[in-house]
Amino acid sequence: MAAYSFGWREGAEAGGKGVRQALTVLGARAAGADAGAGVPGAVAVELVHAFSLLHDDIMDGDATRRGRPALWKAYGTGPAVLAGDALFALAVGVLADVPGGVRLLSGALADVLRGQADDLLFTSRPWTGPEAVTPEEYRVMAEGKTGALLGCSLALGALLGGAPRPVVAALDRAGRHAGVAFQLADDVLGIWGRPEVTGKPVGGDLREGKRTYPVLAALAAPEGARLPGLLRRQRTAQAAALIEAAGGRDAALTEARAHMAAARTLLDGLPLEPGAAAELGALLDALADRER
Amino acid sequence: MAAYSFGWREGAEAGGKGVRQALTVLGARAAGADAGAGVPGAVAVELVHAFSLLHDDIMDGDATRRGRPALWKAYGTGPAVLAGDALFALAVGVLADVPGGVRLLSGALADVLRGQADDLLFTSRPWTGPEAVTPEEYRVMAEGKTGALLGCSLALGALLGGAPRPVVAALDRAGRHAGVAFQLADDVLGIWGRPEVTGKPVGGDLREGKRTYPVLAALAAPEGARLPGLLRRQRTAQAAALIEAAGGRDAALTEARAHMAAARTLLDGLPLEPGAAAELGALLDALADRER
Repeated sequence: MAAYSFGWREGAEAGGKGVRQALTVLGARAAGADAGAGVPGAVAVELVHAFSLLHDDIMDGDATRRGRPALWKAYGTGPAVLAGDALFALAVGVLADVPGGVRLLSGALADVLRGQADDLLFTSRPWTGPEAVTPEEYRVMAEGKTGALLGCSLALGALLGGAPRPVVAALDRAGRHAGVAFQLADDVLGIWGRPEVTGKPVGGDLREGKRTYPVLAALAAPEGARLPGLLRRQRTAQAAALIEAAGGRDAALTEARAHMAAARTLLDGLPLEPGAAAELGALLDALADRER
Repeated sequence: MAAYSFGWREGAEAGGKGVRQALTVLGARAAGADAGAGVPGAVAVELVHAFSLLHDDIMDGDATRRGRPALWKAYGTGPAVLAGDALFALAVGVLADVPGGVRLLSGALADVLRGQADDLLFTSRPWTGPEAVTPEEYRVMAEGKTGALLGCSLALGALLGGAPRPVVAALDRAGRHAGVAFQLADDVLGIWGRPEVTGKPVGGDLREGKRTYPVLAALAAPEGARLPGLLRRQRTAQAAALIEAAGGRDAALTEARAHMAAARTLLDGLPLEPGAAAELGALLDALADRER
């Protein structure tokens, strides 16, 4: 099951992009160490990422991942739960003897899980009115669900590379900003992306009533008044057109750019090894710009 | 959900026996420290235990736990998966700054998960012939699934209490033996226990085709030849009677006594604080003798 989830039984494209491990290795190099110093952290964050995807697909009922059946669809829910647990235990074991490493990982994971829980709970809230999900609640959710592990990836690399504590913390924050930008881009792809690129069915987020940023932004505009009705009746194509017309897509892309700028500002203020810092900046840009 | 799983919303009897936390505190005292020294370990092992029960019930499809609906029945599978993950992350966080603590916990957890996986896989093996589950495979499974965390509980307590490494390792092994004895007693209760005591439905293990020790022992006896047919046709009452007549119950209880004796021999060979060692021996005896 682990081999299946890493794509080792299929072509490399089934195995994910390896963003987190790249961040960890770049974090170590940015701290002035060899790339190899970051490898234990890179292994741990990829294991945690794989674990969280396995369980996330079960929680969300997502039947497809990277264009293939999700693990729980292929092997059953019980075995997929267990496989995720095993990857998590392995990740913790990899870092068990790295001073400060487990503290970083467990803190990030608590934020990831809280973000996933919020993401689930948001769908039971009303679309409008005082109980509706706010953009600030969205930001906290996205920072946890997506940003915490990206920040942890960078921070772990820097920690393993011997960076001083304030540099580790600043890289963590930069990764979190990049994660929010990444999630915003993911929201846009989830509504307007091509399934052959995203590996996910068209309109899935809209059908599930996910409180993505484009939806929240459209609901805040006068044109968005008809949106809850369309979503309730599962008119996903009409809903997508309305969200775009109400400015939801542009608002999400603008917000993504703001978070990426915040990440770049943090990076620019740190005493990092220039070559690694340049690669890091390019990788973060690519993360938030996945449409092209 | 965590409060529900710990029984904090009901009477104390819904919250489990607290065996693992008691072992950890006794491990610390056996090492000559104050009981309080073991508390972080006690918290961690109870969190891991709660996490493994939550996910185990999902994997086994068990709808009942401690006489109440299992968490996944009460709140849904997705939320229960997430709640288990959160308890696990919390456990790791509690020990993150204890030197050697995370290594002990993650090693035990890998064994627990391997034991759970074997337990699941055993049910797809044939009842008889060269592919059948052997008593040695059962022992390894039970030591992982049940013994590893009991051993870890004791070892963590001793570690936190400042015991030397060989003492920590010997207490780990003693706890593992006690865990196998505990699992054997659990197997017996799963077939012949009263549901008002066990909190589980009568005949559940037999209906699920679990390879419990009484079943394996009965299959090895000539009288057991009719057993696979009865189990396949879900004749659980007749199967229980046949297992008993074939000596399966006695064999399990004898095996349990042998593992408990091994645990006691290990404990007797260690330089432990006498009062704590006596309480520890009494607790382990109670574990393997849950029928009365």
